Amino acid sequence: MFNKVYLIGVGLINGSLAKDLKRLDLAKTIVGVGRDSARMQAAQASQVIDDYQLLSECNVADADVVVLGVPVSKNKHTLDAIKANLSSHTIITDVGSTKSNVIQAAADAFGALPANFIPGHPIAGSEHSGFEFSKDNLFRQRRVILTPTEKSDADALEAIKSMWQKVGATVDVMNAEQHDAILSATSHLPHMVAYNLVNYLSKRTDADDIFNYAAGGFYDFTRIASSDPTMWVDICLGNKEKLLESIDGFTASLNHLRTAIVNDDEQTIHALFENAKHMRDKSLLKK
Amino acid sequence: MFNKVYLIGVGLINGSLAKDLKRLDLAKTIVGVGRDSARMQAAQASQVIDDYQLLSECNVADADVVVLGVPVSKNKHTLDAIKANLSSHTIITDVGSTKSNVIQAAADAFGALPANFIPGHPIAGSEHSGFEFSKDNLFRQRRVILTPTEKSDADALEAIKSMWQKVGATVDVMNAEQHDAILSATSHLPHMVAYNLVNYLSKRTDADDIFNYAAGGFYDFTRIASSDPTMWVDICLGNKEKLLESIDGFTASLNHLRTAIVNDDEQTIHALFENAKHMRDKSLLKK
Repeated sequence: MFNKVYLIGVGLINGSLAKDLKRLDLAKTIVGVGRDSARMQAAQASQVIDDYQLLSECNVADADVVVLGVPVSKNKHTLDAIKANLSSHTIITDVGSTKSNVIQAAADAFGALPANFIPGHPIAGSEHSGFEFSKDNLFRQRRVILTPTEKSDADALEAIKSMWQKVGATVDVMNAEQHDAILSATSHLPHMVAYNLVNYLSKRTDADDIFNYAAGGFYDFTRIASSDPTMWVDICLGNKEKLLESIDGFTASLNHLRTAIVNDDEQTIHALFENAKHMRDKSLLKK
Repeated sequence: MFNKVYLIGVGLINGSLAKDLKRLDLAKTIVGVGRDSARMQAAQASQVIDDYQLLSECNVADADVVVLGVPVSKNKHTLDAIKANLSSHTIITDVGSTKSNVIQAAADAFGALPANFIPGHPIAGSEHSGFEFSKDNLFRQRRVILTPTEKSDADALEAIKSMWQKVGATVDVMNAEQHDAILSATSHLPHMVAYNLVNYLSKRTDADDIFNYAAGGFYDFTRIASSDPTMWVDICLGNKEKLLESIDGFTASLNHLRTAIVNDDEQTIHALFENAKHMRDKSLLKK
């Protein structure tokens, strides 16, 4: 399918994509590009990538596809680093969690949005990061959202769509703003809530007792608070506007529940819990 | 160990305790007491209990131990229903999630706190409820907190402590207020947060998209929002004061994070996330 694919940043997502592309014969050569030669050598030694280049001296002129998989605040810097040798035939895509942000980065780096630029987001992250956690079939039965711009070329979109489908994902296409609103709710807000919960508890005077008595349910609930802090600083600032809307909605809703508790308003509390349970159970059944 | 144990309410916890007490020869006869004869017959048919009585006409005169496992708002009503025939030799304990509340219920029902009353809380619940989910060894490697009152008899405390240890739990003893503060943080607050998150999302205009694109992480995170609403209305009102303190602390902390996001204050956000990840990872390692 592709002769040469360059992965800029070889973490969990790009590493797993590399494994699938090779195993399924979807790419002949996979080149990793990164800032740290020791990390790149390790990725090559573990056969996640065939070859590597350092970002500061990279040349992606012969790329069929370039996949950005760097912290989203680094998108502009990364595009600046690769643009000198970029062929107009090369498709540029990414795997970042925020989409308006990467489109802005591309507009800034290139002056205008390239036709071969197809922003994307495979919803397959976890609290783990790094190519060491990459694995075969990570994208199977997962969703990938592509958010082409007004300038995006239909064939380039089709090629990236097909790539994700061939590694087992269901692909949906929507605009970046819609993506960012949905993900602020399903993913970014829950991360903020989990980080904040652990953080709040750790600062209580009875924190030692709290962590001592926390049971399995607590660790499940806060699993996402073990996610990479640097990546998540980027995501929350990269989707700032939508995330703040989600935080504010969540807080207003929590305050509504708080008022019902203050007033011993059993009926309202029960209706809120019942609705939550119903919506979660119903939605989970469809998965 | 015990000749006859009465379980008032045969749900997940009491059902699992029943299985362990029988299997390990810690009780000769286990009698379930409930309001619904069909449910009691089903519990007997599935051999969770040996026999049953209806609460309205129960007689627990020959009980060595009575274990309350009813929604915590029903403790007073339940104690009123059993007290007429209660022997002064019978130890009364419970498995509820709130402890100041059950002590108040006992004080109200008996006029004074009985010496044989040993409040307890096995930290072994899940989002499932009902004896159908009961199982062997539910309490193995779990913690049980006992919160004896000033009136509690030392031998009665020892007997209940020993019972839980024999079914595999680690038993800690503390006062009810300390229990309620810790549990408001480790369990009750997370439940409010999870219920509230799902509830808030379900009321957004893009709720259909949100549940459509929610991935595994979201369902792990919100698992506890599938808990029984009636039980949780009781818990949140049964531990109202401590829970409100926890909700307020959580909200203030979330507001602090929100402000840092508004201000693009990467350093503060990173420090909050880093601390949360560190505390969770460190605490999980000790488990």
